Amino acid sequence: MAKNPSEANDAAPVALVFGVGPRRGLGVALARRFAAEGLKTVIVARDEKRLARQEAALRAEGLDVFAFVADATETGAVASAFDFAQYHGRLALVVFNVGANRAAPALETTPADFEALWRQNAFAGFLVGREAAGRLAALGGGTLLFTGATASLRARNPFLAFASAKAALRAVAQALAREFAPKGVHVAHVVIDGVIDGDYARTNFPDFYKARGAGGRLKPDAIAAAYWGLHEQERSAWTHELDLRPFNEVF
Amino acid sequence: MAKNPSEANDAAPVALVFGVGPRRGLGVALARRFAAEGLKTVIVARDEKRLARQEAALRAEGLDVFAFVADATETGAVASAFDFAQYHGRLALVVFNVGANRAAPALETTPADFEALWRQNAFAGFLVGREAAGRLAALGGGTLLFTGATASLRARNPFLAFASAKAALRAVAQALAREFAPKGVHVAHVVIDGVIDGDYARTNFPDFYKARGAGGRLKPDAIAAAYWGLHEQERSAWTHELDLRPFNEVF
Amino acid sequence: MAKNPSEANDAAPVALVFGVGPRRGLGVALARRFAAEGLKTVIVARDEKRLARQEAALRAEGLDVFAFVADATETGAVASAFDFAQYHGRLALVVFNVGANRAAPALETTPADFEALWRQNAFAGFLVGREAAGRLAALGGGTLLFTGATASLRARNPFLAFASAKAALRAVAQALAREFAPKGVHVAHVVIDGVIDGDYARTNFPDFYKARGAGGRLKPDAIAAAYWGLHEQERSAWTHELDLRPFNEVF
Amino acid sequence: MAKNPSEANDAAPVALVFGVGPRRGLGVALARRFAAEGLKTVIVARDEKRLARQEAALRAEGLDVFAFVADATETGAVASAFDFAQYHGRLALVVFNVGANRAAPALETTPADFEALWRQNAFAGFLVGREAAGRLAALGGGTLLFTGATASLRARNPFLAFASAKAALRAVAQALAREFAPKGVHVAHVVIDGVIDGDYARTNFPDFYKARGAGGRLKPDAIAAAYWGLHEQERSAWTHELDLRPFNEVF
Repeated sequence: MAKNPSEANDAAPVALVFGVGPRRGLGVALARRFAAEGLKTVIVARDEKRLARQEAALRAEGLDVFAFVADATETGAVASAFDFAQYHGRLALVVFNVGANRAAPALETTPADFEALWRQNAFAGFLVGREAAGRLAALGGGTLLFTGATASLRARNPFLAFASAKAALRAVAQALAREFAPKGVHVAHVVIDGVIDGDYARTNFPDFYKARGAGGRLKPDAIAAAYWGLHEQERSAWTHELDLRPFNEVF
Repeated sequence: MAKNPSEANDAAPVALVFGVGPRRGLGVALARRFAAEGLKTVIVARDEKRLARQEAALRAEGLDVFAFVADATETGAVASAFDFAQYHGRLALVVFNVGANRAAPALETTPADFEALWRQNAFAGFLVGREAAGRLAALGGGTLLFTGATASLRARNPFLAFASAKAALRAVAQALAREFAPKGVHVAHVVIDGVIDGDYARTNFPDFYKARGAGGRLKPDAIAAAYWGLHEQERSAWTHELDLRPFNEVF
Repeated sequence: MAKNPSEANDAAPVALVFGVGPRRGLGVALARRFAAEGLKTVIVARDEKRLARQEAALRAEGLDVFAFVADATETGAVASAFDFAQYHGRLALVVFNVGANRAAPALETTPADFEALWRQNAFAGFLVGREAAGRLAALGGGTLLFTGATASLRARNPFLAFASAKAALRAVAQALAREFAPKGVHVAHVVIDGVIDGDYARTNFPDFYKARGAGGRLKPDAIAAAYWGLHEQERSAWTHELDLRPFNEVF
Repeated sequence: MAKNPSEANDAAPVALVFGVGPRRGLGVALARRFAAEGLKTVIVARDEKRLARQEAALRAEGLDVFAFVADATETGAVASAFDFAQYHGRLALVVFNVGANRAAPALETTPADFEALWRQNAFAGFLVGREAAGRLAALGGGTLLFTGATASLRARNPFLAFASAKAALRAVAQALAREFAPKGVHVAHVVIDGVIDGDYARTNFPDFYKARGAGGRLKPDAIAAAYWGLHEQERSAWTHELDLRPFNEVF
């Protein structure tokens, strides 16, 4: 893991992605795309071993990817991740892709569960968003993207806790957009309406995963293309919110 | 304070209002209206002295109002408040009117502030809502109302933290409605879009308060009438969400 | 039919309801409620025979109801209906309850169908709304209510044409609210999310009607209670939009 | 004007853009982008002279652009435009960019104005959308994009008629998306929230135009990039609605 990288370069644009999990997943796809577009890319997650594997795999593809272990729910760790990213170059693009979900009817949702989902989805999003907005504004601009979900807009059983957390996160994105867009920071919220074709849903929501079939799940690379498209928008025509769903998803 | 009331009556309908603050405020107006309509009414807040004053004042008006001191962010205290209410009769109507707000630009919003607003507005709302939904469903039905705000729907500076918390609360209300309406529990979310003509805004947001003028602020009794109207709706035509604003409020 | 009523009284409040159809229907229920509350009530529809029957039936209940035959899609006829209503007293409450619906997939929706639904739902709503807003504002205030539907907010097959027309109507209501509320006119839009337990749906959408069962359809009197509640709101706390649905309706 | 083009080629992808006005405008920018990406591009408008100028200018840039004069509010003319486009190759991308706006308070909005705006914005959109959805579905898929506006989502004075028409159009887009996405047709609605930096707004809404300043208006090429991005989305991650606004636009 690159704790003290020699490849730091103040001029190179840097991407910083919070929430990089399994190899087949959105976090890795985002990092791959950003690095392939020429950005030095810092990937952040709590799980040191898994993160190191993703860093190694992406580097083996010839990409400039650097891992940084941090818990996005801790203020200091979040700041350190930004410091680490800025050491590598000019911060240009930050993605908050941390997400945690557990399904339960309301009466089986414990206060601890409710709080845990909020902390990982919304509180961490606030910490990362606030840090990103401040630093990017100081640099004259940049892009800040949040990963949302169907539940960001609609709350229903068995996703009360998840929906509440995701709605809280969406409000963070919206408030930051309104406050920081005039300062050059492009803040966008992507509503992923469907099941991602990756290891997370396959493992945690196998029924949803299987029910869709391969053709009915969002491909991580296709989502990453949309994130990259947002980053490339010029400031006369910025998108704040867009939805992404498979062609055959009922909505 | 009526800790062991002799007037308990299993058949009498009971209202339970969380979040009763200053004398000129929505919580007191709700309690007055519900009690005037014949419901034994339990009022809940953390501030024992102030709550006792409101109980005494409402009783002096000849109303069956009972105070219960509890912090709505504590699971056990919330359950006790429900036990207390059910001791007085048949639980029929629960209102979550707890609210806390602080204005700050994003970079001056501390993680502690962000969490505190969530805990009081959303986490407490989850605790109360979950308890109410379960108990009312077990009784065959009832009404559960949540107090929302402009910020429940729109997040903007300087209300990032408040908006995030209120959006989280709105999702709780929506998920509970979808899960518990078929079980006879009428869950509604009231979007109060403007400044309430009471002591809270006058003290905490004096600029907003004054800018509106008396004719441009929501009267607590008028809001209470809307809450009562929701409780009276028969189940073939329930409202889940409605907005309330002064006639001259820009929206 | 009262073409030249002797009971005209400048001081009496008058309700004017556009869109009164079958005996078991929302229009009749609205008229009955308004008249029962003491308003002279003018009912308007195109079908002279049916309208006369409803007038006779409501009068037989002892209610002050007056029929006026008019096509709400004709500017002059709409103005005449208002003149007729104002002849009876002080215009206080106007409801646009005209609605027409036909189900068809997009490729089977003819341009003529698309236009016809717009004309009856939206164009007529504009004519009535504009006339009402102007006259009520000149009188110092009043209430103007629009009947919406699930489709006002969500467009889906086989209701493309209906949804487009209802969305157009909702925008009329919203624009009028923003322009005329400060002039004392309370404009509200009611989203009826489900099947009304009346003759219209039973005849025109028998499958939807039967699928719900008696317990799953909105009772016209319950809806009328909500409209009346809106009219009774005092101007410090006006609702612009509310939804109404049966407790067991999936949403 | 290419009435009988010899360059027809069944395999070449074809774009069809309804609503091509002034040289500095969104229609021309869309055509330029699509043609630059290699699509034979058919441009449609009512004004024969102006359309011929745009065709000539774009051809002078080396682009395969073909003009077709048609009034998008006429069913037969719309079908002919599609026939003409399909003569040139395989229909791949259709844009409904027709728009007409006039500002007026409600009481100064005539029934004729209200209808005219609906006919140009919504009825024409239905005709084009229905034709596109049917033909693209028959071809196995394609892209269908609609140009929306701030008013598509919010109705306010002095844009009652425009907002009503744009809301009606948005519902058409939404219904078509739900019905035809599973058939391979990507239907998206772009909410342009601000003033386009082109001749239309400069001429018709000079006050809005000037108030923004050059930096606060949407550049047609930037919007065109977003449309192209939608067309390039692969079907596992389609966007149905996105907003576009200048970085310093208040929203």
